[in-house]
Amino acid sequence: MDSPTTTEPHEPWGDSGAWNRHLGLRMIELSGERVTGEWDVDPRHFQPYGIVHGGVYCSVIETVCSVGAALSVIGEGLSVVGLDNHTSFIRAVRGGRLTVVATPITRGRRTQLWEAEIKNEAGQIVATGRVRCLCLAPGTELAGKAVGTTEP
Amino acid sequence: MDSPTTTEPHEPWGDSGAWNRHLGLRMIELSGERVTGEWDVDPRHFQPYGIVHGGVYCSVIETVCSVGAALSVIGEGLSVVGLDNHTSFIRAVRGGRLTVVATPITRGRRTQLWEAEIKNEAGQIVATGRVRCLCLAPGTELAGKAVGTTEP
Amino acid sequence: MDSPTTTEPHEPWGDSGAWNRHLGLRMIELSGERVTGEWDVDPRHFQPYGIVHGGVYCSVIETVCSVGAALSVIGEGLSVVGLDNHTSFIRAVRGGRLTVVATPITRGRRTQLWEAEIKNEAGQIVATGRVRCLCLAPGTELAGKAVGTTEP
Amino acid sequence: MDSPTTTEPHEPWGDSGAWNRHLGLRMIELSGERVTGEWDVDPRHFQPYGIVHGGVYCSVIETVCSVGAALSVIGEGLSVVGLDNHTSFIRAVRGGRLTVVATPITRGRRTQLWEAEIKNEAGQIVATGRVRCLCLAPGTELAGKAVGTTEP
Repeated sequence: MDSPTTTEPHEPWGDSGAWNRHLGLRMIELSGERVTGEWDVDPRHFQPYGIVHGGVYCSVIETVCSVGAALSVIGEGLSVVGLDNHTSFIRAVRGGRLTVVATPITRGRRTQLWEAEIKNEAGQIVATGRVRCLCLAPGTELAGKAVGTTEP
Repeated sequence: MDSPTTTEPHEPWGDSGAWNRHLGLRMIELSGERVTGEWDVDPRHFQPYGIVHGGVYCSVIETVCSVGAALSVIGEGLSVVGLDNHTSFIRAVRGGRLTVVATPITRGRRTQLWEAEIKNEAGQIVATGRVRCLCLAPGTELAGKAVGTTEP
Repeated sequence: MDSPTTTEPHEPWGDSGAWNRHLGLRMIELSGERVTGEWDVDPRHFQPYGIVHGGVYCSVIETVCSVGAALSVIGEGLSVVGLDNHTSFIRAVRGGRLTVVATPITRGRRTQLWEAEIKNEAGQIVATGRVRCLCLAPGTELAGKAVGTTEP
Repeated sequence: MDSPTTTEPHEPWGDSGAWNRHLGLRMIELSGERVTGEWDVDPRHFQPYGIVHGGVYCSVIETVCSVGAALSVIGEGLSVVGLDNHTSFIRAVRGGRLTVVATPITRGRRTQLWEAEIKNEAGQIVATGRVRCLCLAPGTELAGKAVGTTEP
């Protein structure tokens, strides 16, 4: 698979990727075999106890797993859509840089299962999750438009 | 249980609840038996296909389930923290108002399991998930501070 | 949908359904809208603490959700296969009759999500879970044979 | 941790572990750091399509994760009980020897999260899952008896 790979942290979200931009997630490796990224915790990520909201971890895991799944089938003209996200919270965080690594458990023709792990600067696991994605043929409709069509 | 209840949509997030504020989530009912809320989809919630990011649903479900679990034990001086969030995505969304309803499956002394369902204006399920929470005794440390302490 | 319905408890497992037979699960309602069953707890279901093994609940939930999903697409000539089973354990059990009710959360053309709840004779929830199934076109291969082919 | 370790396949289930005995699961390594086992697929494990029932994988994963979690706290006099089992099915199986390896993701004082992977003889993943366990103080009641009490 020769999906694009880079190692400079960057934010490839484009105009319609506002949720990823607000996360502050920077991508490092981007391929159908492995996706990695990082972000710096700041108060925008907090829930009322002053720790990172569980939904931040779910969001990051959803992004990196879906991007990996999408890159692994893009060469065949397919898209993917997330079916289920199961995220486990391991350690509460109040600051610092977090990194995420996503790898595939299975990449079938019909569905894919990816796993992602988020660690702090000390290398401790903060959260980990799995995302099941469905592979979609070109032109499949999602919410009334063909997949990938973002224009109104 | 006489946990506080209200029926006016409002945003009770305070200074440290920035993630919930960015979601735009307004709470309607708030009690240890049931938590409901609503939000209006706008481009801030989008992933690159121009549909609501799966992490938005996970985040909303995490919030309403955790708030319900917290309210159900607040009278006993306990706090809760999320262990696992399992969210399933049912229908892609590009706009409109979404509502969420969370109810308990079990509220034990040690853990609670809550379920939440998100629907669109047509009453169709958009996403649904379950959050397992751990009940914490007063003074339990989370990330180096007693639970609920948000001051630096 | 006019999938078959019955209300006499019976064990419709046939020669190749040995796992369901060992569970002792009797089916009561069988349709693509709802599947119900019951079984009597006995020592065969125990883990070493002398309570029902968590895998018994997972197994029952897998069966009723998959049967419901299969019945809901059988009229279109499709089959289903389970992708993920997420079961939560609520209450330890040492005996008595348990009942299970499965209902669909979504029945799409490509995947289905079903939910099942297991209760004891007092009506208390013992376990609850969700199963995501993938719909398969006729003739799809599973482990080297077309779906549904059970002959060696 | 000096939990007991062995490398001879054996069935340590005792009189009350009937569900594990019916699985046919033989344990190989048994410690609080890692649990491994194996079993030979035969028709008793089948669902009606003639493939291994998903509940078999859930059951095996529940066993090895719970045993590992229990061994990791047995030195402190604690027990564990499963809260949630999330198993993903990767590949349909009709026969052969399967092996399972369980390792901890986190072993906290209050909860543990373990992960298990099941492979076939070709080294391909067949199923994988995670089990969240709650740690219980000595004497905690489960279904009306202190944990670990199996006598009637």
